[in-house]
Order: sequence, then C-alpha cells, then structure tokens
Amino acid sequence: MTHSAFHPTARTLMGPGPSDVNPRILEAMSRPTIGHLDPQFVGMMEEVKAMLQYAFQTENALTLPVSAPGSAGMETCFANLVEPGDKVVVCRNGVFGMRMTENVERRGGEAVVIDDAWGEAVDPDKLETTLKAHPDAKIVAFVHAETSTGVRSDAKTLVEIAHRHDCLAIVDAVTSLGGTELRVDDWGIDAIYSGTQKCLSCVPGLSPVSFGERAVDKIKSRDAKVQSWFLDLNLVMGYWGGGATRAYHHTAPINALYALHEALLLLEEEGLENAWRRHDLNHQALKAGLEAMGIRFVVDEAHRLPQLNAVWIPEGHDDAAIRSRLLNEFNLEIGAGLGDFAGKVWRIGLMGYASNPKNVISCLAALEAVGLKSAESAIAAAQAIYDNP
Amino acid sequence: MTHSAFHPTARTLMGPGPSDVNPRILEAMSRPTIGHLDPQFVGMMEEVKAMLQYAFQTENALTLPVSAPGSAGMETCFANLVEPGDKVVVCRNGVFGMRMTENVERRGGEAVVIDDAWGEAVDPDKLETTLKAHPDAKIVAFVHAETSTGVRSDAKTLVEIAHRHDCLAIVDAVTSLGGTELRVDDWGIDAIYSGTQKCLSCVPGLSPVSFGERAVDKIKSRDAKVQSWFLDLNLVMGYWGGGATRAYHHTAPINALYALHEALLLLEEEGLENAWRRHDLNHQALKAGLEAMGIRFVVDEAHRLPQLNAVWIPEGHDDAAIRSRLLNEFNLEIGAGLGDFAGKVWRIGLMGYASNPKNVISCLAALEAVGLKSAESAIAAAQAIYDNP
Repeated sequence: MTHSAFHPTARTLMGPGPSDVNPRILEAMSRPTIGHLDPQFVGMMEEVKAMLQYAFQTENALTLPVSAPGSAGMETCFANLVEPGDKVVVCRNGVFGMRMTENVERRGGEAVVIDDAWGEAVDPDKLETTLKAHPDAKIVAFVHAETSTGVRSDAKTLVEIAHRHDCLAIVDAVTSLGGTELRVDDWGIDAIYSGTQKCLSCVPGLSPVSFGERAVDKIKSRDAKVQSWFLDLNLVMGYWGGGATRAYHHTAPINALYALHEALLLLEEEGLENAWRRHDLNHQALKAGLEAMGIRFVVDEAHRLPQLNAVWIPEGHDDAAIRSRLLNEFNLEIGAGLGDFAGKVWRIGLMGYASNPKNVISCLAALEAVGLKSAESAIAAAQAIYDNP
Repeated sequence: MTHSAFHPTARTLMGPGPSDVNPRILEAMSRPTIGHLDPQFVGMMEEVKAMLQYAFQTENALTLPVSAPGSAGMETCFANLVEPGDKVVVCRNGVFGMRMTENVERRGGEAVVIDDAWGEAVDPDKLETTLKAHPDAKIVAFVHAETSTGVRSDAKTLVEIAHRHDCLAIVDAVTSLGGTELRVDDWGIDAIYSGTQKCLSCVPGLSPVSFGERAVDKIKSRDAKVQSWFLDLNLVMGYWGGGATRAYHHTAPINALYALHEALLLLEEEGLENAWRRHDLNHQALKAGLEAMGIRFVVDEAHRLPQLNAVWIPEGHDDAAIRSRLLNEFNLEIGAGLGDFAGKVWRIGLMGYASNPKNVISCLAALEAVGLKSAESAIAAAQAIYDNP
C-alpha cells in the first residue's frame, strides 16, 4: 500500500475548538526545529512563561505549558494536588466536570459531587452548603467556561467560598483563557489549566497551567509521589523553572512552542482586555442574527460565554444533515451537542482568530442558505450591532 | 514588557534528538488546521495508523501515536499494563531504564532491577536467572536503543526469554524506530513505545505506540482503572479505533499529526530497510573519521547504535568549550553525556534526515576546526567508506 501527501481542504472552524489558527502562527510553527537545550530555545521558553503570566493575569512563577493537550493539563492539576484519601468537591454542570470526577477517583481521592443542570452555572449556595457538610474537604474544582454547554460560572465567588472553607481551588479555563475575563491573582485561583486551541487560536497540543504559592507548597510537601512521572511538577519545575541549570526532563515539543509563542505575541499586541471586548462584540452580533432566525440560546444571558454559543436546534431541522451541508458546501464547521445535548444543540464557536465579523456574517448566510428562515434579515440584524456597537 | 517574533538561527542537529526535521515535514505541519472530528482528519488518522504499522513491522490493531512526547508513551505502557502489586523486571543500563523503574513504582508495582554497566547491552543470562528467581514476575521491560549510552540490546532474545517465563515484554524503541532493525511481530514484542523526533526526523511531541493481543487482553481485563484518564487506552481505543463511530476523548494535536503523516510517508518512500542501511552506512563513515582522530567509541562494535555514536572525549579537550564552539561557530549541535557520562562522553547523532554524508563530513571538519587533530585525514577516511560502501 502506498500513501500520498495530506492536503486538507481549509475549513472555517466555528465549533467548540480547535478554532481557526492565525496564519502567522502556522508560519511560526514551521520555522527550523532546534534543540530543546539550545540557549535560543531556553530564551524563548522564558518569554512564553512571561506572556502566559500576562494571559492568566498572574505573577505565579509556576506558569508554563504542559507538553500535551488540555486533558493532560487537567490531569496535571489533579495528579499533583490530590493525594490518596483527599476529599475533593467537584462542581459538575457538563462533560468536563464529569471528567474531573474521574480524575479525582483515579488518584485515590474521594469526590463529593455537586450537580447543576446542563446549561446552568455552578450554584455558589450549593457549594457553600456542601463545604459546611464536608469540613474535611481539601480541594474545590470547577469549570470556569463549560465547553459542552456554553456556560460561564462565577469563578471569583466560587474561589472565595473555597478559601473560606480552607480549600484550594482548581479551575478549568480551557475555553475561557484569552476570550473572557479571567484574573488568576485577583480571584485567588490556586491551580488552573487551559488549552491552546480555543481563544488563543493556536494549534491544539499544549496546555497552559499556573499554580499559586499554596498549591506549590502542597505539591512540594506531598507524602506520596505523584503517580505520573511525565506530569510530576516537582520534576517539570526543574526543567521549566531551572533557568541556566535546567534539568532534562522530557523533549519539549519545540515547534508547537514556537506556535504558542506567536499566539501569545498576538494576544500581547491586541491587549487582553481588547480581546475580551472583541469576543463579546462578535457574540452580540451573532446573537442578534440567530435571534432574528428565531433561534434560542441554551444559557441565560447572564451566564453566556461569548466564545461558545450553545443554541437549541430549531424544530423541523435535521442536526446531522445541516452540519454536514455546512461542512461540505461551505467548509464551515459548527459543533454538535455532547451527551444529553446530542441532536438538540449546536455549539457555534467564536474563538480567538475565528471571532470576527466576516465569520459571523458568513455563518448566518450559510445557515440561511441551508434552510433556516428569518422574518427580518438575520444579516442586517447582526450588521446593526457592528454599526452601533 | 513587549516581546517580538522568535526567529531561531537554524542548526544542524547531531545530538541525541531532536534530529534535523525534513523541510517537507515542516511544510506539511503548517497546512490549515481542521477539526479533529472532520472526516478528512479521520481519514488521515487511519493512514497514520497504517504507516506506523509498517514502521513497527506489525499488524497490531492498537498502533497509534500518543498525543504527547516519548516520556508519555513510556508512561502509557506502564500505566496501562502494570497493576498495583505486579512484579516487573526492569533491565537497566542507562538513564531510560532508570525512568522505567520510576514508572513501575509510581503505579504501585514492584520493580526487580537488573543492572548492566552503562555502555553495555542488557545481559540475557542475567534476565534468565532473575526470572527463575522471580517466577511471579508478570512483565519484563528494557530499552532497545539506549539514548544515554548508544547501546543496542538484543530485543529478540530478551523477548523470547520473557515469554518463556510467561511475562509480557515492554520495549523502549524511542531511538531505534526507523533507524535500526526492529520487527515487532517477528520478535513478539507485546508493548512498545517510540518518539517522533529521532529517526523519523519529525518534530518532537508525539509518541508512537503499539500493543499486541496479549497486552490488549491485560488492559481490558484490569481490576483497577488505569490511574491516568488521559493515557487510559480503554478510552483512547474508542477514539483512535472507533472508525466512523469514534468517541471524543481529547483534542488531537492536529498539525503535529500532519507532520507525522509526512514523516511516515518519507519512510514509506525510502523503504524501511533502505533507511536502516542508510543509518548504518553514515555511521561507518563517521566512525572511520572519528577513529582517524584517535577517538574511541564507548560501546563495543557488536552493540553500537548507528544512529547514536557515543564516544569518549579525547584527553586535553574541554567538553563544554568545544560543544559551545561547534554550536556558536558552526551552528552544529552534538550531544553531551548524561549522568555518569557527563563531561566524559559526546553523543553524536545521525538520525533520520540528519543521517547523510554532508553532515558526516561537515561534522568531522568542524571537529578538526575546533582543535581535534588527526594523523591521517579524518575526512578522507570517511569519504573512503562512501566510495567503497
């Protein structure tokens, strides 16, 4: 059997991630590979750390990209912070909260799960009540931006409650970093992980993480070794934190880090708060257009993520057929529903480089072309937002 | 603080990896990112699996690239195959055998370690004796190509011994895949992991793995869940093995997989046995040149890896000063010694795309330029090998 080169047809990526990658990032990634101990590379690593601190709004020294996708970033937090027997309160309101529970239990921890309905934010009152009932809990974990439902939870309040009960807070920011207000230091987040392929518009494959002082203390004073050698931050710290004396741990994904460096440079150039505002503006325009089509949002307005628009599929329309037409006729990818939302919900992403007026307008046009009707013009409704932002 | 774009000075990578990346691979990697559930991408994944089967010389269905570097591939093997209490015999003759021991113990397994001296191959007789003394051992683990010392061990014989004692064999092939004879099915290897950044000449960041039927049976019949959610092959199988019905597990590193696809295509075009012969020929030429300079190899001829030439640093030469001059004046990276070999040994890689006559000749020339003398011409000695291969 012989194979041939893979030349994918380009798509517009408006699903739950990966999002469209800025061509500057693709070009950066194709620069010549150098050694992972080369002084040039070590200098670049330091810049990546500094720019990640900016993106996370933190001065945490232990801020770095894990050399694997977001799921490994999640695992880095749990594997390092949960010791066998630790009680962890997991706030679950979607797929990724469920995955957190798995992560606790596989470490020998005990998960106390608080459920909120899919499409709703994590309820702070339930967390308060649960922590009162479990005074021995050591960690609280929740998802800031639930990619499966499009919900933003109130991270600042949830962290405050966790701290009042002497718990560390682990926060999933895979979909929020770079797209929605997120302030690690101001909000006191102890451990956080994200991904590169969402609002940073970088290629998938790396997971930025950051750990505050109290989390680092817990990692350094563990009784049991971290179960994972690859993700053991006691070892990773010697590599990423070692400066000139850094110790070899694993071979870093050199070119993927070139890509992340360029993605963070783009964020620095735009300015973090400007990026948040841009995500919000494009969301408002898409929302105006979708509502003109009679499409309703899954999440109430106060808790919507601008970068991930979860909407109910209007009656009379076939989920798979429409997504397939969008992909094949318009090279446009929107996201399907996961779990309970399969077949009922679309997830339209406006993340990073993909969050722009051209994508908003052409997505509405494509939806109209495949049969979604609107009384007033959806495109005019969206454009009106841009004309009077 | 503001940053600027990172444009690395290109190097010639003749260390222990990463090796020089073929420009075709860098170009492939910069193609447009598409979704990880896009039918185009799913088709490409199937081709990657088929070409990895060719590279490993196996028909194992469970053959895929783990979405993280070689260390995570190692961890995938141990996390899935070792259950708490399992006794694992680890043959240790360098850095990576030591890391295997860590991997066993962190899974709650019991490691029985057999030591061979650095620079020597794993001794089959010691393995036989050890397995007789530990009839309850369930797994044997060893490194086929020790990157820290340049030694090739006799994988076929070691696997036979393991099987005779009813053990599964886990083999580290990070540095051998694509560079040295390796036949997973013929040799009966049960579980194997490699890296992309050595003899496949791809960018670092992925770890090809393959598991035979008996290993898959053990993974499916585990009592305890795999400690790692990210690396749990019971879940990964549903993604990579699911065909049209594949289940979402994590977001694959799309562009890194484009790169691996192209690297495997290059291997298919050249032919696996031709690639092995090329690595051997360039090693012979480098060896002739180095010996003309009076430089001696660490490993005896029968167990040398052609792709990783570990040599004693000649007396009177300063390790760091010479490597630094090679890097700064010639943009040539050669590898330092690790552990006990630090300051005493250089590791000169001839891996994948970097294994070519131009690199051999220019490396010898650069060594001469920074002060390594030879009675007869080292370059003429190397060229003589190419003239009469």
